[in-house]
Amino acid sequence: MFPTADSDRLRVILVAPRNPLNIGAAARAMSNFGFFHLRVVNPYELAFREARSAVGAAPLLARAEEFKSVAEAVQDCALVVGTTAVGQRQLQHPVRRLDQAARLLRKSPAGSRVALLFGSEKRGLSNEDLSHCHWLLRIPTREEHRSMNLGQAVAVCLYELARESQASLKPEKHVPAAAAYLERLTTLLLDALRSSGYLKSNPSGLQRRRSAAPTEEKIRRLVRRLHLSAADADLTLGILRQILWKSRQDNNRSH
Amino acid sequence: MFPTADSDRLRVILVAPRNPLNIGAAARAMSNFGFFHLRVVNPYELAFREARSAVGAAPLLARAEEFKSVAEAVQDCALVVGTTAVGQRQLQHPVRRLDQAARLLRKSPAGSRVALLFGSEKRGLSNEDLSHCHWLLRIPTREEHRSMNLGQAVAVCLYELARESQASLKPEKHVPAAAAYLERLTTLLLDALRSSGYLKSNPSGLQRRRSAAPTEEKIRRLVRRLHLSAADADLTLGILRQILWKSRQDNNRSH
Repeated sequence: MFPTADSDRLRVILVAPRNPLNIGAAARAMSNFGFFHLRVVNPYELAFREARSAVGAAPLLARAEEFKSVAEAVQDCALVVGTTAVGQRQLQHPVRRLDQAARLLRKSPAGSRVALLFGSEKRGLSNEDLSHCHWLLRIPTREEHRSMNLGQAVAVCLYELARESQASLKPEKHVPAAAAYLERLTTLLLDALRSSGYLKSNPSGLQRRRSAAPTEEKIRRLVRRLHLSAADADLTLGILRQILWKSRQDNNRSH
Repeated sequence: MFPTADSDRLRVILVAPRNPLNIGAAARAMSNFGFFHLRVVNPYELAFREARSAVGAAPLLARAEEFKSVAEAVQDCALVVGTTAVGQRQLQHPVRRLDQAARLLRKSPAGSRVALLFGSEKRGLSNEDLSHCHWLLRIPTREEHRSMNLGQAVAVCLYELARESQASLKPEKHVPAAAAYLERLTTLLLDALRSSGYLKSNPSGLQRRRSAAPTEEKIRRLVRRLHLSAADADLTLGILRQILWKSRQDNNRSH
């Protein structure tokens, strides 16, 4: 994992972004996943100003640093990784799939700064930009449609970098209903089925066991298969009691 | 990964999206990660039309299906999962972190359809929308800034679903009931609860919506939590029909 204490080491660097919405989206994803240092190289000035003044722009956008060249933007970083949509064969660099790249980035020495470069919406990173990179990473998209939207690419990369480092949500506290509850539920359900005529009520001894037993077992198994929590068993018991009570009332009235 | 041959099973469902750029971004991420079935519930018509006519809109956007309600949009799906930015404690549903959720989705039986719901940009999914879900997933964002941009949230979810295969995971042999069945079951159960007096029947308009809606949603969620197989849903429908039939007969006799 990219240790939470160390997410401070990452510099997200947008090279020549053109669209203020994408700059804003990148900043928002950074804030979502806990990365706070944005750098921008040669942005279209208007786009950068617009993104900064947009309502709800993350404060980290206001603190974004601006550089004239990739060289300056990465100069304090010990590891520089570029993102690309292009396959290995056309590139001079090793290309790693995002999940493998994230594993490597997490292993980079504590305290050293890491740069993650994203190219412009139109052209991605140029060969000159790439020449500043130690290696490249690729998000595993489909061969037929590799190129991602810039804001989405940033979000996916940061999600992967932040993986597992976030305190995990506590697993659901499913408190299963005790067997006694399930049996009471079964009994009530069988009563309801008898009083509704779904099951024959009061057949004589032997015959009853022969005909009703398989159905009773079927209902008992059904109730167990539901994996009711204690709370849901309570709720269901209440529902069944009400239905039975009403049906008895109706019966009494009609006889 | 969500087996490539099976990525065809996923339905990405945008509920009441307002922004054409987000609809377009969702479609682009789907195409990037190999998911091709987009459904839209009650979109802002203008936004939907604009997204469709945008230059470079993925062909899958042209084929997107439009629905009037969540119930209709999920009716052929055996598993319905909602996305949320809210924590467990405020919700009635189990909430799973995206990576855990993806593991579960991969295990869902081959051939069954899976719906993944995204709410509107402003409000996310409503309680009514959520009541159609079996469970929820949450992208592990920072506590202090949980809410993601819609297009980015779709991209991150689909990236995780398309992730590397875990060959060891065998699909379960449980054939889950389709949503349409669960909704029929919910309706019958609500009928039974009304006729038994557990729920008030036919209160006047406004009051009814105010008082009955939370209970209806509670019952709808209960039915989803049971994870009924197709066969058990059939069995349960039969039981409920018989109970209702009997109670109506008794009522007629007693009046």
